[in-house]
Amino acid sequence: MKIREVGEFGLIRLLQEDKEPAAGVVAGIGDDAAVVQPSPSCVTLLTTDMLVEGVHFDLATTDAASLGWKAMAANLSDIAAMGGEPRHALVSLGLPAELPVEFVQELYQGMRALAGQYGVSIIGGDTVSSPKALVLNVVVTGEALPQEVCYRRGARPGDLVALTGTVGDSAAGLWLLSRGEQAAPWQQTLFTRHLRPEPRVAWGRALSAAGATSLNDISDGLASEANEIAEASGVSLALDAEAVPLSPETLQAARLAGEDPLHWALYGGEDYQLLCTLPPAALTQLPPELPLRVIGQVQAGAGVSLRRGGESRPLVAAGYNHFRGEVQP
Amino acid sequence: MKIREVGEFGLIRLLQEDKEPAAGVVAGIGDDAAVVQPSPSCVTLLTTDMLVEGVHFDLATTDAASLGWKAMAANLSDIAAMGGEPRHALVSLGLPAELPVEFVQELYQGMRALAGQYGVSIIGGDTVSSPKALVLNVVVTGEALPQEVCYRRGARPGDLVALTGTVGDSAAGLWLLSRGEQAAPWQQTLFTRHLRPEPRVAWGRALSAAGATSLNDISDGLASEANEIAEASGVSLALDAEAVPLSPETLQAARLAGEDPLHWALYGGEDYQLLCTLPPAALTQLPPELPLRVIGQVQAGAGVSLRRGGESRPLVAAGYNHFRGEVQP
Repeated sequence: MKIREVGEFGLIRLLQEDKEPAAGVVAGIGDDAAVVQPSPSCVTLLTTDMLVEGVHFDLATTDAASLGWKAMAANLSDIAAMGGEPRHALVSLGLPAELPVEFVQELYQGMRALAGQYGVSIIGGDTVSSPKALVLNVVVTGEALPQEVCYRRGARPGDLVALTGTVGDSAAGLWLLSRGEQAAPWQQTLFTRHLRPEPRVAWGRALSAAGATSLNDISDGLASEANEIAEASGVSLALDAEAVPLSPETLQAARLAGEDPLHWALYGGEDYQLLCTLPPAALTQLPPELPLRVIGQVQAGAGVSLRRGGESRPLVAAGYNHFRGEVQP
Repeated sequence: MKIREVGEFGLIRLLQEDKEPAAGVVAGIGDDAAVVQPSPSCVTLLTTDMLVEGVHFDLATTDAASLGWKAMAANLSDIAAMGGEPRHALVSLGLPAELPVEFVQELYQGMRALAGQYGVSIIGGDTVSSPKALVLNVVVTGEALPQEVCYRRGARPGDLVALTGTVGDSAAGLWLLSRGEQAAPWQQTLFTRHLRPEPRVAWGRALSAAGATSLNDISDGLASEANEIAEASGVSLALDAEAVPLSPETLQAARLAGEDPLHWALYGGEDYQLLCTLPPAALTQLPPELPLRVIGQVQAGAGVSLRRGGESRPLVAAGYNHFRGEVQP
């Protein structure tokens, strides 16, 4: 069945959940605005991302549920990168009228599958027609005690630079997906990293609690995120290429592609791991299960440098430029 | 200059304001999420609207500043319709790379000109490429004491139905604009009603404080909004067509168009006036300058009826159907 056939209000009814509203929700979907109860002593975090068909995703390499998952993951990851706890979501959809209703239902299932893991429910939004391209706009709110919020601007000379998990996996997965091959199990791991990334909410809170001085999530690639911390904090970050954590699967994909895996790690993005700076003493305050790898030091100065094979070179901010359609520089 | 030439980050810099952040803003644009301080004892209101070029607006009949104004007005009006005080805004823009940078600057000027009147600042958002159509998504947050929030669901038999200001003006203005004529002063009034609608924030708060039992803003037309209150409250609304307030300018445009002005009032929408129900005694609690007109009564039952020329007929919910591209029923 096409959206055209059920209409706007029919679609909204199909997307409504029967579940009890989440904690803190005074009124969800169904009035002019949603109403929520802030937690005592907490500040509110607000983040939003817009995804446009043909720019951020291609329906040839993603299914509806994965698209919904990833749109939600990108926003939950922003809350994680502030050291916050996600709370509520608003979802605006611009939909071609010829789209099957089932596509939108699966999109919602994907968003809810991930959001539900964090106690986040969709409490509002907008559903409109967009004849030329599918457009999603997701908003996620979060909360934290004021002293728990971790900004990009607090890195200080003497701090270490550290990274959770492995990076480059999402770009490796996209490369494999675009080849359209049957997937071996090791490839499936990378598909999951690209299509169903995990926001690192618990790790963000643990890093903030341990005394991280800055925090950023890897949405645009390590090079871009490191430069954001350096610029916001007024310091220089000296990174060691050999320390950047790469997965065995990404190394295998890079051999197959004839590609430098570090390039995927630096410029690929969408890994949603957390990049942080922290004083050396903070390392002992972290839960042992947190997979954190030290990849460099904070120094006085400006910009980011990368040491590789004994040689250090400037690492400039680069990533996808939305208005030039290319990876820069 | 085209957006393509300045790029994403160049554009974001051009759109940044030098002004002091508004009250309650701990951190605005520039980190993974904005951080705000909720007001003591208040609940938070959240609303969002997506506008798509060719569906919600046509660049032939609106300028950039008016488009920005109206996108902001629609969201501020939703907060007004809850009896709330607007606080902060997030703006996501999907932009064709060939759009002039000046267009986006004027769009922002329009949003800020209106938002600033309510102490609302834009504290976050997203700016991405959307090659096939301009897309805006605006989020506005608001606050109210829990007992001040006015829902759609509280109308009770015996209440009066009342409306602020005049309705149909926006549709009349759109009809005049689409004719593309030179504007006489009376026409200019209707252009302003269509292009630069005023959210009725102070009136919403006054109605809530006086004891309004339900509140809704006229975004989709009086017929649609009255049906929403009737359905949410489980009551019937009996409206009197002769009492529906129409402006002299709309009556004049309707004569010119050979159109029934009541049709514009019932189905046109985008007037952003407030429709409410309230006990008769509440009328004496209202500030004398509030232009409120009683247009009917709340009765036991379901649905909405309209009495005109001595005859009463059912008034069904109707308005623009986003996925069928027509005004229904």
